[in-house]
Amino acid sequence: MTEVGNRAVFGSDRPIGVAVLGMGNVGTEVVRILREHADDLRSRVGAPLVLRGVAVRRLDVDRGIPADLLTTDAEALVTRADVDLVVEVMGGIDPARGLIGAALSAGKSVVTANKALLADYTGELAAAAERSRADLYFEAAVAGAIPVVRPLIQSLSGDRVNRVVGIVNGTTNFILSAMDETGADYEVTLKEATRLGYAEADPTADVEGYDAAAKAAILASLAFHTRVTAADVYREGISNITAEDLETAAAVGCTVKLLAICERVPAGPGEPAPADGGKERISVRVYPALIPRKHPLSAVNGAFNAVVVEAENAGRLMFYGQGAGGAPTASAVMGDLVMAARNKFYGGRAPGESVYAELPIAPIGDTPTRYHVNLQVADRTGVLQAVAGEFAKHGVSISTVRQEGSDEGARLVVVTHHAEESALADTVAALAELESVTSVTSVLRLEGTEE
Amino acid sequence: MTEVGNRAVFGSDRPIGVAVLGMGNVGTEVVRILREHADDLRSRVGAPLVLRGVAVRRLDVDRGIPADLLTTDAEALVTRADVDLVVEVMGGIDPARGLIGAALSAGKSVVTANKALLADYTGELAAAAERSRADLYFEAAVAGAIPVVRPLIQSLSGDRVNRVVGIVNGTTNFILSAMDETGADYEVTLKEATRLGYAEADPTADVEGYDAAAKAAILASLAFHTRVTAADVYREGISNITAEDLETAAAVGCTVKLLAICERVPAGPGEPAPADGGKERISVRVYPALIPRKHPLSAVNGAFNAVVVEAENAGRLMFYGQGAGGAPTASAVMGDLVMAARNKFYGGRAPGESVYAELPIAPIGDTPTRYHVNLQVADRTGVLQAVAGEFAKHGVSISTVRQEGSDEGARLVVVTHHAEESALADTVAALAELESVTSVTSVLRLEGTEE
Repeated sequence: MTEVGNRAVFGSDRPIGVAVLGMGNVGTEVVRILREHADDLRSRVGAPLVLRGVAVRRLDVDRGIPADLLTTDAEALVTRADVDLVVEVMGGIDPARGLIGAALSAGKSVVTANKALLADYTGELAAAAERSRADLYFEAAVAGAIPVVRPLIQSLSGDRVNRVVGIVNGTTNFILSAMDETGADYEVTLKEATRLGYAEADPTADVEGYDAAAKAAILASLAFHTRVTAADVYREGISNITAEDLETAAAVGCTVKLLAICERVPAGPGEPAPADGGKERISVRVYPALIPRKHPLSAVNGAFNAVVVEAENAGRLMFYGQGAGGAPTASAVMGDLVMAARNKFYGGRAPGESVYAELPIAPIGDTPTRYHVNLQVADRTGVLQAVAGEFAKHGVSISTVRQEGSDEGARLVVVTHHAEESALADTVAALAELESVTSVTSVLRLEGTEE
Repeated sequence: MTEVGNRAVFGSDRPIGVAVLGMGNVGTEVVRILREHADDLRSRVGAPLVLRGVAVRRLDVDRGIPADLLTTDAEALVTRADVDLVVEVMGGIDPARGLIGAALSAGKSVVTANKALLADYTGELAAAAERSRADLYFEAAVAGAIPVVRPLIQSLSGDRVNRVVGIVNGTTNFILSAMDETGADYEVTLKEATRLGYAEADPTADVEGYDAAAKAAILASLAFHTRVTAADVYREGISNITAEDLETAAAVGCTVKLLAICERVPAGPGEPAPADGGKERISVRVYPALIPRKHPLSAVNGAFNAVVVEAENAGRLMFYGQGAGGAPTASAVMGDLVMAARNKFYGGRAPGESVYAELPIAPIGDTPTRYHVNLQVADRTGVLQAVAGEFAKHGVSISTVRQEGSDEGARLVVVTHHAEESALADTVAALAELESVTSVTSVLRLEGTEE
């Protein structure tokens, strides 16, 4: 039975044709590597990889490659008979979705870095790949050069992943690191990040957490064998984070990071526990949170990414590296391309979508996390008692309270044990109504503690 | 052409038979996972994985599994018709080598955690796998649960790896971390490590660097597409490291780690540079070295492992986690087992051995590293000049010198720029002859600096 998969399907002189969609930062690097490292790639695949064409929006730009390789007709390119593999690095939903679908339907294997597309349409694309027995690879869609998709799909395929926590957006990590280091406020730091090229002119997708949420959806799908889309991910961005938040964090030995968190949580209220046959759920969320400075993710600074995976047998693993940029992302694309090409040459296929577990998504309202609540209060006896009373009334257990004098009264910093989001929200609403509470200055989640 | 690799070769009810060789820490965990997670594994493979038998040395021990699954006849087990996959976790060269060879020749795919065997016999085993079109997987052979073999073979297959530096032996890292923390000497710490189960009764393979050297050979083979065996690896262990070495390291903002280093180095003396058509070489070595405390590997403490990979496009990646232990190693084995089973089920194959580059190994003598040389000298004028003169005479450039008064004269700590091992050895021999040098207290390499 081992015969079937191993025949060299192509003669060894038959080259494997590659089409590239998009020639931005990543596409340019992919084309460069295909040309500069042709000999190595040929040795690794078993047959030459030959660039058949690059789809671009405009032909009147000199891109340093022969003009006859460029085309604006991406649709024709992806189904050309001499194209075996399609690299999609144009980004966005349309026309990428249709082009990838057309390529897969025509039996071309596809390598994509398109997290937004995958977060919503992996099911559709994987089904197209399945029907025509083509491959869909997407290592570059999460955390750039860092191998995390393949480890989750393959290396951990015999383990049970309990939790994935990552810093998967370089722009926000650059901003938060800089705020932590300089003490500057968000707006100033964002401007600097834009000037340095770490943030785009319209930074919304990054700073509001949409990019991280797409990656969280992909990671959760892989980790839990369940289809998770961007709409399933609870999301908060960093645009409300203030210099004072970072100062407060530093005062308690923490820093602030935008985290993508995917984890198993208990069955819903009223459901039997998983041990008693109830179905466990998963929580997938992206938000800025305090993490202790001794947590391995707290040392991940600047535009770097890191993903921590906790599995039943493997324990805690961490993957660290460059999460964005032309060359690092192209490295991940090229690894996928070589594997897809080998499958074309030797037979064999990438593992398809694995969504058999179909775990329900827990709403953020009953996902317990710890909280760090900053209050401005009147500086008089009984305030602490009143505040503590509100926490108790809503079933939120307090871990520590710190009180500091300030010019306008006193400041209370309350750190809770794990509490459900809804209970905490009710507590905060009630605190704001207390006569002795001047204001609820900030509410930040606290992650990465053992408790 | 995509048809060939994707046919379900087995009917979906046909189970995939697994034989396990060895029931120590890892084998016990593999058997447990196969039984406890049978449903998940079936969903991930596409067919049930069924344990056909476990080869053990003695049958008179209760291992908590049905007695009819146990056998002492490993040879018969690995070629049984109902066995498709063989997991080898017995360790050692013989009889593992013959059993794996027999299994592969019979078309069974093999998953092994046996670094010592692979370091010397990957060529032979890979050839046997190639002949019968079976798979040979070995993620668990390096760094336990940490995916590093698969990332090197697959994820980085489209990149050019320049350097791999790892802490790949938990025993020595536990000892060095403890010495760094407690200030205790080597012998005391080794005893404690043995008591806690971190060191074996005969710790030679670990503390003398043989285990790390085997892993370095495997890593270098994968990183550089060149067959590297244990004999190609320059090796020094940690048994000569003293409490004073760690103290000296701390004084210069460093710690001491046993590093496995695999890197590209320039062409040999007299050869043209790689850019001019000369063949670059690779250096593979294992030794204790100072590394700066701000280097990411310096924070890897206790029995943990970490591997840093530097590639042309990906940049610097780090992989971190548990490098040993039954369950973590079993996690890596199980990931390989699921992939091997999928190949049996769907067709397709693991990438075979890739040794096309055939880069020569540079001898340690002309592999440049930085050095940290500790001298006890007479406390009088002119000593520094004499010492500096010897370095200059042998072409070893000094980066910094620090002089400290001590009870018996003075202590000189010299840190060099990159120097060839042979030049440094000549310098040290000459220093020892100097009338003003009482003794050369220690010579340690310094790694992980940018210089």
